[in-house]
Amino acid sequence: MFESAELGHKIDKETFNQEEPKLREALLEAQHEMMDKKEFPVLILISGVDGSGKGETINQLYSWMDPRHISTLAFSEPTDEERMRPVMWRYWRALPAQGKIGIFAGSWYSQPITDRINGDLRRSDLDARLVGINSFEAMLVNEGALVLKFWFHLSHEGQRSRLKALEKNPKTAWRVTQESYDRLKTYDKLQAVAGHVLRVTNSAKAPWIIVEGTDDAYRSLTVGRIVLDALQRRLKQQGRAMVPVAPAIVQQPIDDKSVLSALDLTQRLGKKDYESQLAKYQGRLAELMRDPRFVGKRSLALVFEGPDAAGKGGCIRRVVAAMDARLYQIIPVAAPTEEEREQPYLWRFWRHLPRTGRVVIYDRSWYGRVLVERVEGFCQENDWLRAYAEINDFEQQLVEAGSVVVKFWLHISADEQLRRFQERQETAFKRFKITDEDWRNREKWDEYMAAACDMVDRTSTGRVPWTTVEANDKNFARIKVLRTVCKRLEEALGDEQGKYRKT
Amino acid sequence: MFESAELGHKIDKETFNQEEPKLREALLEAQHEMMDKKEFPVLILISGVDGSGKGETINQLYSWMDPRHISTLAFSEPTDEERMRPVMWRYWRALPAQGKIGIFAGSWYSQPITDRINGDLRRSDLDARLVGINSFEAMLVNEGALVLKFWFHLSHEGQRSRLKALEKNPKTAWRVTQESYDRLKTYDKLQAVAGHVLRVTNSAKAPWIIVEGTDDAYRSLTVGRIVLDALQRRLKQQGRAMVPVAPAIVQQPIDDKSVLSALDLTQRLGKKDYESQLAKYQGRLAELMRDPRFVGKRSLALVFEGPDAAGKGGCIRRVVAAMDARLYQIIPVAAPTEEEREQPYLWRFWRHLPRTGRVVIYDRSWYGRVLVERVEGFCQENDWLRAYAEINDFEQQLVEAGSVVVKFWLHISADEQLRRFQERQETAFKRFKITDEDWRNREKWDEYMAAACDMVDRTSTGRVPWTTVEANDKNFARIKVLRTVCKRLEEALGDEQGKYRKT
Repeated sequence: MFESAELGHKIDKETFNQEEPKLREALLEAQHEMMDKKEFPVLILISGVDGSGKGETINQLYSWMDPRHISTLAFSEPTDEERMRPVMWRYWRALPAQGKIGIFAGSWYSQPITDRINGDLRRSDLDARLVGINSFEAMLVNEGALVLKFWFHLSHEGQRSRLKALEKNPKTAWRVTQESYDRLKTYDKLQAVAGHVLRVTNSAKAPWIIVEGTDDAYRSLTVGRIVLDALQRRLKQQGRAMVPVAPAIVQQPIDDKSVLSALDLTQRLGKKDYESQLAKYQGRLAELMRDPRFVGKRSLALVFEGPDAAGKGGCIRRVVAAMDARLYQIIPVAAPTEEEREQPYLWRFWRHLPRTGRVVIYDRSWYGRVLVERVEGFCQENDWLRAYAEINDFEQQLVEAGSVVVKFWLHISADEQLRRFQERQETAFKRFKITDEDWRNREKWDEYMAAACDMVDRTSTGRVPWTTVEANDKNFARIKVLRTVCKRLEEALGDEQGKYRKT
Repeated sequence: MFESAELGHKIDKETFNQEEPKLREALLEAQHEMMDKKEFPVLILISGVDGSGKGETINQLYSWMDPRHISTLAFSEPTDEERMRPVMWRYWRALPAQGKIGIFAGSWYSQPITDRINGDLRRSDLDARLVGINSFEAMLVNEGALVLKFWFHLSHEGQRSRLKALEKNPKTAWRVTQESYDRLKTYDKLQAVAGHVLRVTNSAKAPWIIVEGTDDAYRSLTVGRIVLDALQRRLKQQGRAMVPVAPAIVQQPIDDKSVLSALDLTQRLGKKDYESQLAKYQGRLAELMRDPRFVGKRSLALVFEGPDAAGKGGCIRRVVAAMDARLYQIIPVAAPTEEEREQPYLWRFWRHLPRTGRVVIYDRSWYGRVLVERVEGFCQENDWLRAYAEINDFEQQLVEAGSVVVKFWLHISADEQLRRFQERQETAFKRFKITDEDWRNREKWDEYMAAACDMVDRTSTGRVPWTTVEANDKNFARIKVLRTVCKRLEEALGDEQGKYRKT
């Protein structure tokens, strides 16, 4: 793996001075073209052995390109904010938007490698993290990102002599600490762990580029050339380059039974029963929210999906009535903003993730990818097909970070929807709730229902199942939602030993 | 996950009788078209709960299609032959060729699921297996295969009543055993494990299709329709469907140093030294081959690559001189045979894998994918780019099964090659060794060397490193090869605790 980076590569000063102006000009030009096009972000990961020139290379890249459109993202110990969310949250927050370059000084690789060297991470846990990293990077590339992963390597002797050289120079001596020398001692361990990590994550979509770190000119020129070459290739692609895949495998129903058609929509709840149960479950929910096992360890994410006018808003109001307003946030999900469109589709949901003790309620959600975007053709078939696995991964990360994720599909019949639409149009204070788009969507009722059935089939998992709610009767729906939230919270809080994790 | 398969789907006899002739005709037609085209194989995995009609469905598929071009592959306890090789070997052996349909009654999923239910497999080991399965299936699809994975589901009550029904009917009563009832008891455990396995392996490339198993007509018709639909879509594709990917990231050298150019080809070994060392290492190798730690637990795979006339054959002869001829096999790798071209490119190497106590020597190897196939354009850029990771996976599986894998790049200078070519042409008994193709390849010397450097960089891993051999002097090369084989074997045999696995 590291053979090519122990050869003593060197570029003499003259060659460097000849090459640099051309490289700089070409890099600037490519960067401006990519800024104008705003079609894809660039992620540059700078990682490797201590003293291998990571900082110098980042400075060099800044000096060659327009620094206003580059950001450098460094990650040390996670903050409180970060510790209260899934491990990958801090990296999602830092993703560069389309047209921007993000340099990751330290990345999602740093912590697992360090933890493994220190013995704080078992090999099987490391491998599980690497699986997650591979999925994350595949998703980035599928969403259009250009991902360049550099690993700067030094031989053991090379690392020692670089430290000595840094120490000798008064300008850089401050950078050499006892820690630097301690790291020399774990050199072999680092090589073994890094070798494994690099092998497992050396995918065709985001391969590692290993660069010898000894000679500044060689290292900088190599990185600069690779960044330039990759940028130019990416800019030349009409849209994105294509590779062959299997055809979509779609399961067409052959009878009229589906998870939705099977629902008994005649179920009703009388006013009296409704009121007593509402009080009961709201009370219970308020208690659960204050339970120390929730406050200190858990968070809650509620997802509401369903046809227009299914009563999502009404259910949400009954849920939050039981909660302290400082603890929850409702995220109404409509068309993405400009900022959100410049990121992978899951980004806008990551940004709102609840921290420990908090609640986020999504009024529509990431499932838009496999519902409206699929039906309306806002993304390609391949994009929504891969979304099922991406979404399952995403929710899995939430669960692993202690979140309780409860997903509701509120279901009404087509007739009931029509009745509610008409009522909305006839009632002045409800008129704002109905638009032309609602009527247009209604014409595609069957397609939306087919997409919803596929969604439930493919994303109802053991730890994050869908709850389908018979919602022709609003009272019935609201109580079922409240009861389900209480039940799922009770199960999770009772699950101190994490029994759901033992499958 | 299983919600849609607990709804009591049913197709009445009349509908079935109406649909069946049309379906059968269309299936036969599609099957014949795919046989004629011989462009891709079809893999149908039939798995699921006991008593859910797996056997019946397979029989139904046979009755609908041309059974001469279908094979059913059942896997029970691994045979001795299979236990002596990597876990996936039995499935590689069974892969259907292009134009053929293979029905897997039981598959690479069966053992991990059973072992996990019985507590013989830790969760982390299960997950590691699933990662391997995902890579395997991605490779199959990338190589063109159509992979259809069915999971037949029954509710707990449904399983019980199906057993009762089978028992009542004298024709099927024999199929119900005590074991069947025992399995009812582990129903919940199976659901939990299967739910996890299906979620993790529900990729966009090879998604799971979950079918309710209760009603024979519904189940058969569903499977038949999905097979037909997928076949028709696949046949309609011009070549294969395309999805976007990132551009290739290629590292161009910026100085003249490379793992190959850095070799000191002037190294020589005098005749006397050569002869004494030859005797020494051949003797040592012969001992190692008889070592009980090798015979009972290990196998050896040697890979020889290098330019034409680098002396691969001569090295191989010196190695095998130390071995019992019944224990080794030399595989000369030239252009693939017709049978091999109808399979994924790694298939022809899997078939020759050594079993415990045996040696296989590859004279050229799977690295052809990233050497000749890359340089000559025999495969697409995307194909050889993904091959690095596929090859690393493959070798990893060998190592995990106890193989010692030693890879040699025999390197000579372009001048030395010319000298040897001329000598071959001038010597009558060597003339058969030189062809026009050798001269043509020589013209692309630089491209081949660049490909070889990339190969070493990307596939020299901790447990399976490349050994580059300075081969301008044949004596020197032969001794380095023999010495390396002995050393790697000694390390491996001393590694009883598997210390290499602890990275």
